[in-house]
Amino acid sequence: MAECGEHALIARIRQRLATPQWVVVGPGDDAAVIEPVRGALEVLTTDAQIDGVHFDRRFVPPDAIGHRALAVNLSDLAAMGARPRAALLSMALPQSFELEAFDRMVDGFLALAVRYGVALIGGNITHTSGPMVLDVTAIGNVHRRKMLTRDGARAGDEVFVTGTLGDAAAGLLRLQEDHSAADYAPRYLRPDPRVRAGTLLGRNRAATSCMDLSDGLADGVRQIAQASSVGMTLDASSFPMGQDAKSWLSSKGRDPISVALSGGDDFELIFTARPRQAGRLRAVRRLLGDLPITKIGVVTRARRLLVTDERGERELPDGYEHFR
Amino acid sequence: MAECGEHALIARIRQRLATPQWVVVGPGDDAAVIEPVRGALEVLTTDAQIDGVHFDRRFVPPDAIGHRALAVNLSDLAAMGARPRAALLSMALPQSFELEAFDRMVDGFLALAVRYGVALIGGNITHTSGPMVLDVTAIGNVHRRKMLTRDGARAGDEVFVTGTLGDAAAGLLRLQEDHSAADYAPRYLRPDPRVRAGTLLGRNRAATSCMDLSDGLADGVRQIAQASSVGMTLDASSFPMGQDAKSWLSSKGRDPISVALSGGDDFELIFTARPRQAGRLRAVRRLLGDLPITKIGVVTRARRLLVTDERGERELPDGYEHFR
Repeated sequence: MAECGEHALIARIRQRLATPQWVVVGPGDDAAVIEPVRGALEVLTTDAQIDGVHFDRRFVPPDAIGHRALAVNLSDLAAMGARPRAALLSMALPQSFELEAFDRMVDGFLALAVRYGVALIGGNITHTSGPMVLDVTAIGNVHRRKMLTRDGARAGDEVFVTGTLGDAAAGLLRLQEDHSAADYAPRYLRPDPRVRAGTLLGRNRAATSCMDLSDGLADGVRQIAQASSVGMTLDASSFPMGQDAKSWLSSKGRDPISVALSGGDDFELIFTARPRQAGRLRAVRRLLGDLPITKIGVVTRARRLLVTDERGERELPDGYEHFR
Repeated sequence: MAECGEHALIARIRQRLATPQWVVVGPGDDAAVIEPVRGALEVLTTDAQIDGVHFDRRFVPPDAIGHRALAVNLSDLAAMGARPRAALLSMALPQSFELEAFDRMVDGFLALAVRYGVALIGGNITHTSGPMVLDVTAIGNVHRRKMLTRDGARAGDEVFVTGTLGDAAAGLLRLQEDHSAADYAPRYLRPDPRVRAGTLLGRNRAATSCMDLSDGLADGVRQIAQASSVGMTLDASSFPMGQDAKSWLSSKGRDPISVALSGGDDFELIFTARPRQAGRLRAVRRLLGDLPITKIGVVTRARRLLVTDERGERELPDGYEHFR
């Protein structure tokens, strides 16, 4: 890395980009310039991935680092019902970082970008004496009436999640135990942001609130409940979990339900919907095809957060939070 | 810091924000949502500030860290002729970071944001085992015909800079020598992005190319020359330098011209303009008032980069570049 300059690294990325027509100025100037989407709102989010905090370079391969850095941001856009469009990539890299790893990291980032029609329009590269940091800003669009937020849940709504819970956390636990277990941790290493689910929920106005699960189900439930001034009661027996993750966790003496509640990195969507508007959700389900949508609870007027299982009712545990 | 959670820190910032009407969803949801400016292009830039690389916490006070993190990004927007509008702030903080320092850092950021009418619309906070990182994305707007880029310089154009050169680098050298010399380093600690100069140059179509000086004059000259496929000859005797910086540098046996060329952090604008359109530049000068604009050289067809002084002509030295 030390042999290449910052400008050469940027040139290395630029030569691989296809620049769509609406990008007026792409990477290489002081800032990127794009044409806005007529009639739509702009949606912007930024999220950092830090070695040793959000991933571990000892067992997360470079392409997965690049993939994850973009995926967590596309997931945030999806949670708003927004279509992703562009991204900025800001990298702080140790001097010792190898050029081949750099290329593979960019590969992982760009492969996901291409899959979702996202243009890399800018960013910056700097060195750091500390751990590697990838900070991505993702930009998308949504029409006002199709936007999803966290604050629309009302008592009587039902609570749903896309996909399965705990797979990423189980994958991470496996990787921490055995650094070569990458094959058992696809959901942790290369999460697929629920872009289609989010935009379909928005377009069909099928959800009253929505967010993405980055810090565990418990955190998601807490955030939506707080923003919407409601309570929720979850039925633990309904939590959708992959069979692999469940059996592996059980074999290790871990409670799968606890992992689903507190484990992060699922990047599924949690949302609430009105039972009266079940037809809208059916339409979304049909269009989504394979991705399951599972009812896991109900929204309550009483502002308590409860989980019920065969042993009875208990308070919702905490999710993961930085600085806690 | 460890006593507060991430959510509490975010709440601490949110309660201090005034949210303008065009912000549809501000901080606290999965992403921010804003109304675009009708008829204008969107301008986006991201730049990271890392402790030990871009600043040093031992002698840069927290409010200056916050100020600088936003300033360097507003400077990039100014270089495009764009009016700043919104920002996202992504922070990676050591667990030991103190809450009071956090508040003062946010103070510094928000004071500059308010001065330029910039709304903080989102971001994220995470802990890190390494040095502190502040990564800012700034969003602005420009009309297509008023946009400034790096690639429009043509042979015969004249080269200008705003303000003075080398003050920031001299300030940094002083601070490195004496950590309590903050009073002698205002330009390094709290650079004022040339927002008004940039937007006036754009609006008056007074510049054929423009960029901001973050990595020294030599780097700026090199970037514009390369993007525009031209050469430049600079007259070192014309470089505008503050008297304080000049005398201090000389007293330390440092060549002020070399510092102006290679020292970073000036955040002045370098731009080229057509002599035929001098009237436009006069109008900009009049509107700018106190900020000087100084001619420092000419654009040449021959693609060489030269500096002339009383000793004759020499090749332009390198500017600062990461990984070099």
